Amino acid sequence: MHVDVHSFSDTIVALSTPPGVGALGVIRVSGSAAIELTGRIFKGKNLQDQPGYTLHYGRIADEADHILDEVIVALFRSPHSFTGEDIVEISCHGSPYILQQVLQLLVRTGARLAKPGEFTQRAFLHGKMDLAQAEAVADLIASTHQSAHEVALRQMRGGISRQILALREELIHFASLIELELDFSEEDVEFANRDQLRGLIQRILGTIRHLSESFQLGNAMKEGVNTVLAGRPNAGKSTLLNALLEEERAIVSEIAGTTRDTIEESLTIQGIRFRLIDTAGIREAQDQIEAIGVSRTMEKIRESAILIYVFDVLETSAEEIAGDLQKLARDGLTILLAPNKMDLNPYTKPEDYISEWVDASHIIPISAKNAQNIPYLKEKLYATALAGARPEDDVLVSNARHAEALYRAGGALEAALNGLDTGLTGDLLAEDIRQALYHLGEITGQVTTDDLLANIFGKFCIGK
Amino acid sequence: MHVDVHSFSDTIVALSTPPGVGALGVIRVSGSAAIELTGRIFKGKNLQDQPGYTLHYGRIADEADHILDEVIVALFRSPHSFTGEDIVEISCHGSPYILQQVLQLLVRTGARLAKPGEFTQRAFLHGKMDLAQAEAVADLIASTHQSAHEVALRQMRGGISRQILALREELIHFASLIELELDFSEEDVEFANRDQLRGLIQRILGTIRHLSESFQLGNAMKEGVNTVLAGRPNAGKSTLLNALLEEERAIVSEIAGTTRDTIEESLTIQGIRFRLIDTAGIREAQDQIEAIGVSRTMEKIRESAILIYVFDVLETSAEEIAGDLQKLARDGLTILLAPNKMDLNPYTKPEDYISEWVDASHIIPISAKNAQNIPYLKEKLYATALAGARPEDDVLVSNARHAEALYRAGGALEAALNGLDTGLTGDLLAEDIRQALYHLGEITGQVTTDDLLANIFGKFCIGK
Repeated sequence: MHVDVHSFSDTIVALSTPPGVGALGVIRVSGSAAIELTGRIFKGKNLQDQPGYTLHYGRIADEADHILDEVIVALFRSPHSFTGEDIVEISCHGSPYILQQVLQLLVRTGARLAKPGEFTQRAFLHGKMDLAQAEAVADLIASTHQSAHEVALRQMRGGISRQILALREELIHFASLIELELDFSEEDVEFANRDQLRGLIQRILGTIRHLSESFQLGNAMKEGVNTVLAGRPNAGKSTLLNALLEEERAIVSEIAGTTRDTIEESLTIQGIRFRLIDTAGIREAQDQIEAIGVSRTMEKIRESAILIYVFDVLETSAEEIAGDLQKLARDGLTILLAPNKMDLNPYTKPEDYISEWVDASHIIPISAKNAQNIPYLKEKLYATALAGARPEDDVLVSNARHAEALYRAGGALEAALNGLDTGLTGDLLAEDIRQALYHLGEITGQVTTDDLLANIFGKFCIGK
Repeated sequence: MHVDVHSFSDTIVALSTPPGVGALGVIRVSGSAAIELTGRIFKGKNLQDQPGYTLHYGRIADEADHILDEVIVALFRSPHSFTGEDIVEISCHGSPYILQQVLQLLVRTGARLAKPGEFTQRAFLHGKMDLAQAEAVADLIASTHQSAHEVALRQMRGGISRQILALREELIHFASLIELELDFSEEDVEFANRDQLRGLIQRILGTIRHLSESFQLGNAMKEGVNTVLAGRPNAGKSTLLNALLEEERAIVSEIAGTTRDTIEESLTIQGIRFRLIDTAGIREAQDQIEAIGVSRTMEKIRESAILIYVFDVLETSAEEIAGDLQKLARDGLTILLAPNKMDLNPYTKPEDYISEWVDASHIIPISAKNAQNIPYLKEKLYATALAGARPEDDVLVSNARHAEALYRAGGALEAALNGLDTGLTGDLLAEDIRQALYHLGEITGQVTTDDLLANIFGKFCIGK
């Protein structure tokens, strides 16, 4: 792990509240000189004499003793602060002009404008949180719905980190035993019991697989699940969309301030957000314009995990459906088939529509008009998004970077397992285990590179 | 003074930071139950046991013990708070979703969403500030440049309030003496020495006039001074605009985040902002389009306090200028005449251009190209905006409502003065003085109506 310590010895400052006019705006100062620098521009009590976790009323004045604002200052002392450093939070009147003036004054006094995510990066470097927790802070701020909020909060509170650290510790123990063997390689001793090692690796692989499998759910909880709604004209797509959204619309309108995409509709089922993407009706492309419509539908499908194909049981034959599905199907896309207007044809048999693209459990006859079987369709949507994982599991992987590191750690451990079976030498075994340790360490940040840190924290907002 | 006390007995809550995504967002709770209500959703120390001016780390959890966020809570205890009531400020992660959830939870727990300005209104009603100071809080938040910020801060710190209160106190003394006379009216006594009263009223009238005169400057400092730049085509308007803005542009670009109107240019002279409005060149309207251009110029002039008329000394005759000025002049508009290209004709005599619309002191020969005399033109702009008032005066009237109240108080006192001269009876004299007291009291809020309060605080942002 390489860290440029010098860049973290200075005192940084940033506006931590959103830009714009408000009742108040908070400027955050962090670093060893935070209290001293703020003290120089603060007219009130001597901040240096005050304990942490206290508030102080006073005025901010510039070099010419010109009052800029009346403020409340919050004091946190190292190590009991977000960054682990001394922190001062200056609560000003929420005028962009004033906040800009106070920021500039602090810079003239000796603070440096913080880079995006630099406060959280300092928290990471001072051991206040690991890398997965730091990433969760950004996810938490970006969370726009319940499940995203929940996975971020779990991750921030250290769920995945604890599991990864536990796995690493056990592996490190064996790794050190194997390294010891290498020192005594001429003597052909075996400090690391091979059967115990095999058992351990299998156990760790099991956990890694379980975590990896949770990524589909974790990602769905965080990002939402893109779900395309397709069908021929007059199949009942709009009616189905309305039936799916009926309750939802009331809920959405209750919560002021939630932003909704105007083109897509958003549906939440047991906390998981589905982005319902309506498409133009599918039909044989008879002219160029219709061909464009089909290609747009295909584009949406490429970005989606689920396709709900709705059709009119009175109008559309199994052959026509098969023809459509053949065009729409692709790897990784789960197709739910919704034979519609079953109220007009109660003799609809789901098994008539089984094909190589849809199995029986994914066929849900409905009547969109009467909202029949809609709850069951929702259950199917939810189950498909979960794909076997349980959302109540304490630890969910929701971060693609973590999923990739787990995948690589698993690969290294499988190589080690093969090596054990084929009697691989200790040094090659040690190398596989070191690889697994490396990739596990990437998740929590025991192993980092400047590029990785820059990439992670560069996506934060300034002031965090 | 009538106040609906009941509506202020409950506990209010609002987001106090601007809406949007940020590192943090602050939710403010104020009222007698603020600490108890927050305590019910806060997992950490028992807030009720904690003293004011302290900070506490903990988690916010809903009724189902579901964690919503990790937060820092700031505690203020009545009367030592902004509103004078118990206040809790909850510093959350700056996700609109989380802030919305915490707000809704507090409402379910028993708080009420605050109306715009309700926190400040409570501060006023609990005697933490008078009405002029409360208005200054809104001005401070809205301030976008130095002088607006300065007048708001002065007013918030009680500048004008102290002067008005002092005037009122002296008047009240005499008013009570006169009222006493009325009780003994049959006995024809004179408790209130008429000469002393005349002296007092004259002194107060002097102060009121001084304050009223400061309104032009105060308003200019707060709102900026609209200044139209006009002239015939090729008179050098653009060159003059650039010369005026030359330094300014560098300064403006330094300050990130200051918003600039794209159509108008902004020029700051000794802290006073001039909004320079460029206009189409003036010429005889030969067709309809040009007539529209002229009428737009006239519209801009109606909204402005100063007109800079620039002309080419080589091309334009005094008669032509007089013709233009006749069209442009209107009451209340100060015209500055800028004979341009004096480098090409150093024999330009300002007095040649004196007319009924421009006096000698307002003629400033320049060379826009060489930036000659531009500093002098700026001085003239500044002096015109000041109109005799001194910006270093501690008390400036910057609020139109205050200016009107002063005008009415002055009118009542002049009537009283006339009454003294003409031997008006005590009861009519008392009525005039009561009128003056009423209008002075309107400024600081000793006298208010529900409408007035609703009008003032309704313009605040929510959360303040």
